[in-house]
Amino acid sequence: MDIHELTRSLKTTNSSKIVMMVADGLGGLPQEPGSSTELEQAKTPNLDNLAKMGVVGSMTPIKPGITPGSGPGHLGLFGYDPLKYIIGRGVLEATGIGFSVGPKDVAIRCNFCSLDAGGKITDRRAGRIPTKKSAPLAEKLRAVSIPDSIADVEIFVEPVKEHRFVVVFRGEGLGGNVEDTDPQKTGVAPLKPVADDAASRRTAEIAREFIAQAQKILADEPKANGLTMRGFSVKPAVPTYEEVYGLKAAAIAVYPMYKGLAQLVGMEIIGRPGTLAEEIDVLEEAWDDHDFFFVHFKYTDSRGEDGDFPAKVEMIEQFDAVLPRVTALNPTVLIVTGDHSTPATLANHSWHPVPTLLVAKTCRPDACEVFGERAALVGGLGHFEAIHLMPLALAHAERLGKFGA
Amino acid sequence: MDIHELTRSLKTTNSSKIVMMVADGLGGLPQEPGSSTELEQAKTPNLDNLAKMGVVGSMTPIKPGITPGSGPGHLGLFGYDPLKYIIGRGVLEATGIGFSVGPKDVAIRCNFCSLDAGGKITDRRAGRIPTKKSAPLAEKLRAVSIPDSIADVEIFVEPVKEHRFVVVFRGEGLGGNVEDTDPQKTGVAPLKPVADDAASRRTAEIAREFIAQAQKILADEPKANGLTMRGFSVKPAVPTYEEVYGLKAAAIAVYPMYKGLAQLVGMEIIGRPGTLAEEIDVLEEAWDDHDFFFVHFKYTDSRGEDGDFPAKVEMIEQFDAVLPRVTALNPTVLIVTGDHSTPATLANHSWHPVPTLLVAKTCRPDACEVFGERAALVGGLGHFEAIHLMPLALAHAERLGKFGA
Repeated sequence: MDIHELTRSLKTTNSSKIVMMVADGLGGLPQEPGSSTELEQAKTPNLDNLAKMGVVGSMTPIKPGITPGSGPGHLGLFGYDPLKYIIGRGVLEATGIGFSVGPKDVAIRCNFCSLDAGGKITDRRAGRIPTKKSAPLAEKLRAVSIPDSIADVEIFVEPVKEHRFVVVFRGEGLGGNVEDTDPQKTGVAPLKPVADDAASRRTAEIAREFIAQAQKILADEPKANGLTMRGFSVKPAVPTYEEVYGLKAAAIAVYPMYKGLAQLVGMEIIGRPGTLAEEIDVLEEAWDDHDFFFVHFKYTDSRGEDGDFPAKVEMIEQFDAVLPRVTALNPTVLIVTGDHSTPATLANHSWHPVPTLLVAKTCRPDACEVFGERAALVGGLGHFEAIHLMPLALAHAERLGKFGA
Repeated sequence: MDIHELTRSLKTTNSSKIVMMVADGLGGLPQEPGSSTELEQAKTPNLDNLAKMGVVGSMTPIKPGITPGSGPGHLGLFGYDPLKYIIGRGVLEATGIGFSVGPKDVAIRCNFCSLDAGGKITDRRAGRIPTKKSAPLAEKLRAVSIPDSIADVEIFVEPVKEHRFVVVFRGEGLGGNVEDTDPQKTGVAPLKPVADDAASRRTAEIAREFIAQAQKILADEPKANGLTMRGFSVKPAVPTYEEVYGLKAAAIAVYPMYKGLAQLVGMEIIGRPGTLAEEIDVLEEAWDDHDFFFVHFKYTDSRGEDGDFPAKVEMIEQFDAVLPRVTALNPTVLIVTGDHSTPATLANHSWHPVPTLLVAKTCRPDACEVFGERAALVGGLGHFEAIHLMPLALAHAERLGKFGA
């Protein structure tokens, strides 16, 4: 019996409200041995106050030592085992540009590349062609049309950035197990799309036809005269928040990637906020309509990835500053966490645990007086994996019945 | 390889004695933010002294956020994965009244209900008929006799409380997968017993015949003129303490439920104590005859379920007071824990971790000076799941060999 089987069988409903505030890449590292992390250095009177009232812990996103991308990081927070529910690269790339991948879709990450006269790759990224040139080129590929003799399939081509674009095949019974055509080196031709199982044979055929037609369209381009395809994938079969938790869930985010991930687990995407303050506006307006709210704040991660320690500190302070508006709504359970750490010193996602706090009338307060990485180590939630956060949220909202008599 | 496979292969014997003192529902919550839990408030000089000498930790009964019933709570303490060994409701109910469910038994929870002239349920609990009326009625149902043409089966009918009673069918090859006949609403007739697999078809047939005969016996009753059946179940196949740990184990408990759970894992039920002091008498008398003693104290849970904070504090103090008699026996390993939390503020079982202590010559003492929920957060056993407690007990008793060379 896994955790979702447990929550499915024990879930009950009431009028409680759960808010999960996610500061992306929240956890950090000190700049010097013995100094403070970004969060420890930031002035966070509201977070500290919540830490006093609630219970904190040190949350491992996936498993110790494993650095998550945004997909697994958020799946874990949502309580979906990231080692079981694998989001393919094509689906993640499409999700990241706001393309809603459906159940009949195969999504593929594509690169423009440069080919020599013999069809061999001379540059795998077409000289990192700028977006303003690559985007219209990607749009030209929408002229590709797969003959009915191959398949009854709809084709979507969406520009991403520089040499990258996304292709989606939409049709009945298309498998997603097709091997990459990118040979990962120059001096050789792109590989042919090869199916790894019977269900994907037609997908591979469509891909071959797509590539053939696309090459003709691109033939006269100076740099981007070829393409490679990677990460063929279908949307994973994921149960919804309603099914596994009995929650009517809403997601409030600025960036398409996080909206897409929330949509994948059946959350409703609400509002079109452009700033954190606008995200809280949306939260306030939608308060009566949902049981669960996921609120995503991106810039803690962005400034961490920039390697800009003081700027990440400032983003944490901005995040802290909006919290009184959230607590004023009087949520039954308020969680503050991150999907992973993004220490400015590493300028990258990392595996380090994420300080996490939970405030509820039903929580057992611990001795923590501040919210930070070191304080979280002795918190009442202990050291735990992200996948346990949702059952804890439900329990503290008194939305889970007793297991066994 | 699961934990039982490990302990099975590594277990050794010696003359050590392990005592597991279980204060049911031990963990609690503060009444006011910032105040103490029941255990923290109680004066527990003996527990505090044991915490100083030993090692403590914060134990999660099942998984974070999951509130256990008594069955899964105790299976976890005994080291049996509660998500693997599922005890059916019928078996648990029978166990709770001291009926020893055997390998050929199907146990069923039954309710007396009120039926109208058309056979439709008007009250699912027969007006909560008092026990003094329902018990003789249940006994009258012992007159039911299943003809040999249906099955060679022995029938037991045992009163429980108010509208509830237990029926057990004892015979060869009876499956336990029969659907509930309680429609969970009034205005409709009870459902027919339907088998969910081939092995349970005969059980369903017996149930139909039982119901038909019982209805005749009950026909003239003013309120309890019908019955419903729920939680058909057989005893799960559970290895014994002897098999998985090499321990000759004894259980000392006042209430039938806990004796039954201990019996399920092969413990010998010893004595007929009525109080905690009498339980310790039994422990002293049986000291030479067993390797492992499970001692169950019920009233910490009872007063928690009553929502009576000061009374639970007092029960914890009574529990503390008997401990010198236990330590005087000089057990090799002494464990004090609970099967779950029962905070008086919730008046119910809860998911919160349970402070747990272990004292042994071989333990690595930590910095804890008192026994309480907050102190346990920084103890040497850390935050751990109940299923790991028995291997820790065996290890500290030097009853587990090295894994691998």
